[in-house]
Amino acid sequence: MRKGPIKGKHGYEIEADIAFKDVNPADYDILVISGGKGPEKIRLDKDALEIARHFFKENKQVAAICHGPQVLVSAGVIKGRKATCWIGIRDDLIAAGALYKDNEVVVDGNFISSRSPADLYAFGREMIKLLK
Amino acid sequence: MRKGPIKGKHGYEIEADIAFKDVNPADYDILVISGGKGPEKIRLDKDALEIARHFFKENKQVAAICHGPQVLVSAGVIKGRKATCWIGIRDDLIAAGALYKDNEVVVDGNFISSRSPADLYAFGREMIKLLK
Repeated sequence: MRKGPIKGKHGYEIEADIAFKDVNPADYDILVISGGKGPEKIRLDKDALEIARHFFKENKQVAAICHGPQVLVSAGVIKGRKATCWIGIRDDLIAAGALYKDNEVVVDGNFISSRSPADLYAFGREMIKLLK
Repeated sequence: MRKGPIKGKHGYEIEADIAFKDVNPADYDILVISGGKGPEKIRLDKDALEIARHFFKENKQVAAICHGPQVLVSAGVIKGRKATCWIGIRDDLIAAGALYKDNEVVVDGNFISSRSPADLYAFGREMIKLLK
């Protein structure tokens, strides 16, 4: 994924200030993976997968919501981890060896996950706890 | 999924003439699973999963394209089968034990699959061969 403007599915535009290939993951404290249609593209970017692997290998903080955990399936880091996700990809997480739970937020050490935008309050609350 | 009008993602409307729960799969020769956003909902319908299992158990003809194989992951029937799919869910099929191939159409006995709308010609061609 490249640097520059990106338009979301509801038409909002944001500026991506760095491409995955230029990210040094050691410079960051937390990896947040949002949902929507993005994760199906991000999971095909080998640099993005290397970033995800760095965070899991170093036991750094990771937060994923909705379709976000698709990236973690592709990075091969979700096996044996407690997680939740958008219900439509639940069976993919289970097939990949995640320990799926149907909770608004699932905390497994430094890795937190939520199901949908309705869970954003709980997701944000646990993310802030991690960063304290 | 219920009987009645259904609107597709480009706004086209079709009439679903039977609900999954009212289908007797023994009455049908082929199961065709299309793609798009539907499979993430269909895979949550236990009656739809039973229909898919019937076709695999009886070695009847099944054709799935794009996101369609998500239904087969949830039905637990794709392990050890040669298959292809939309590239964004490739790693989910692999995690579920499918033998993924990046071809326009993959034929594994009575089960055929394709990657995307660009493969529709090959998908249709192999489907017609199955039904002959």
